[in-house]
Amino acid sequence: MLAAVAPRPVAPFDLDSWSRERLNQVERALEAWITADAPQGVDHGAPAALVEAMRYSVLDGGKRLRPLLVLAAHEAVAADGHGCPAAALRAACAVELIHAYSLVHDDMPCMDNDVLRRGKPTVHVQFGEASALLAGDALQALAFEFLTPQDDSVPCTVQARLCGLLARAAGSAGMAGGQAIDLASVGLPLTENQLREMHQLKTGALLQGSVVMGAHCAAPSAQALKGLEAYGAAIGLAFQVVDDILDVTADSATLGKTAGKDADNDKPTYVSLMGLAASQAYAAQLLQQALDALHASGLADTRALQALAGMVVHRAS
Amino acid sequence: MLAAVAPRPVAPFDLDSWSRERLNQVERALEAWITADAPQGVDHGAPAALVEAMRYSVLDGGKRLRPLLVLAAHEAVAADGHGCPAAALRAACAVELIHAYSLVHDDMPCMDNDVLRRGKPTVHVQFGEASALLAGDALQALAFEFLTPQDDSVPCTVQARLCGLLARAAGSAGMAGGQAIDLASVGLPLTENQLREMHQLKTGALLQGSVVMGAHCAAPSAQALKGLEAYGAAIGLAFQVVDDILDVTADSATLGKTAGKDADNDKPTYVSLMGLAASQAYAAQLLQQALDALHASGLADTRALQALAGMVVHRAS
Repeated sequence: MLAAVAPRPVAPFDLDSWSRERLNQVERALEAWITADAPQGVDHGAPAALVEAMRYSVLDGGKRLRPLLVLAAHEAVAADGHGCPAAALRAACAVELIHAYSLVHDDMPCMDNDVLRRGKPTVHVQFGEASALLAGDALQALAFEFLTPQDDSVPCTVQARLCGLLARAAGSAGMAGGQAIDLASVGLPLTENQLREMHQLKTGALLQGSVVMGAHCAAPSAQALKGLEAYGAAIGLAFQVVDDILDVTADSATLGKTAGKDADNDKPTYVSLMGLAASQAYAAQLLQQALDALHASGLADTRALQALAGMVVHRAS
Repeated sequence: MLAAVAPRPVAPFDLDSWSRERLNQVERALEAWITADAPQGVDHGAPAALVEAMRYSVLDGGKRLRPLLVLAAHEAVAADGHGCPAAALRAACAVELIHAYSLVHDDMPCMDNDVLRRGKPTVHVQFGEASALLAGDALQALAFEFLTPQDDSVPCTVQARLCGLLARAAGSAGMAGGQAIDLASVGLPLTENQLREMHQLKTGALLQGSVVMGAHCAAPSAQALKGLEAYGAAIGLAFQVVDDILDVTADSATLGKTAGKDADNDKPTYVSLMGLAASQAYAAQLLQQALDALHASGLADTRALQALAGMVVHRAS
């Protein structure tokens, strides 16, 4: 006769502990891979001054939301087998490089002309405008280097897929395109649809891209991919709505960047368009959409992705 | 009894005619692929204003040397079989996008502050600084989009290889790194070795990368690859030596950009370091090195590559 087995209690998911371990991995990889050293058998390394500006902009800063999304999506899909942790770590670092380069360029005098970022002087303040321009350019290229290791740690099919997804998320129909719309819309009245479209490109494309890239480091089913794409779209938009809310409710010290900047620049935001209370309700609604999409994905364990969606909406900075 | 066969006369190689056909192909592809249209089944296209600045910087201008090097190297290797013309055309366009983005950013006020390029106002003069910054950023991403088509026209192994080669040629240990050295060396005395190292990164890496990418669109032997790498290194350096010569011997109308700029900016050049006659002799010596490398490659027909090397050294602009 079999002994009766008590149902195993479900451990509450601890996002802090889950994140800490993965952030350590990402920080160690970024620290080791953004370097002036030439690889063995190659003539040239990178000039030290350029690499210093690149490291300054990437290391020791930021919430690393995009890398965490890559790793969480990979783990959710890889639970069914066929995961590639080496690819996921590289993709996690690559999306952070793209994010970092966009901040460096966005802060420049010809764009937002911001002097404070993550509590430190921005790159062009610290190193000069020309170095900031080149550091951003080099960070974008480095993201694609990270995705194409020359050993056999990442299958070619995965390398090619990740490069394509990242290029599309970062380019003219993604992040750079959204920034161009943002630039062109200062001082203009936008409808909610136009505002959403701008943010879907400017912020949403890379956040959603992070989720989808993480999924493609394993072997997602069509159902899982569809669910994760919808999840990525919802949190991408939620992130920007909350950003707009924080721009009016938080102070510069908490944000690590200049608060009230959007209003000062006469930029359209969700808060200026819908008001604060409706923006907060919209963020809550997008969180629910994200959770529903995870449920529809059919993936067995999406607790990290759920917790990250909650963090996006409930964050204080 | 066999009829005596007269040796078939070797047709002289006509670079103009060879180039014309390939340039048409490249122009048509760039024209068709740099577009604001969203691909089928995708929500977002790119904003029209951004795409206009991207097209302005790429279309109807330039010698297209890098695309021609890609196509010539591919043809030389593919003559033994296993070529992929679709990959070669995409790689040809991708290296031109990287070249175009580097010119857009290099012309900006915080870099060379140049107002004339290919006989037209530079991008930041025409569209504003912020748009020039974003157009350059988007062109770099688009290069990697070109290399990762979502149909099955280019094998994943080739896509991954091309992305890796392009990222390394464009990044901190390639073109962007060379520009950083260039920036840091204005007004400083450089030795010939330091000047060579700067140019090997700034100009040489992408020219050599074009040759090597073209080769990898087919299936090069180790001997062929070694020869083509040496050829690419020699013409990469020759290109810059000749650029320095033309900066003092040609006028702005012929160059399509501001002549005498390097001397005005107190930039070190081969001419300022070695004098004009020695620079001309050095260019001739590099041409011979390039031709010797092609001979050593063991490839059967390298006439296009030979002719392109001659064009690099004997060009008037």
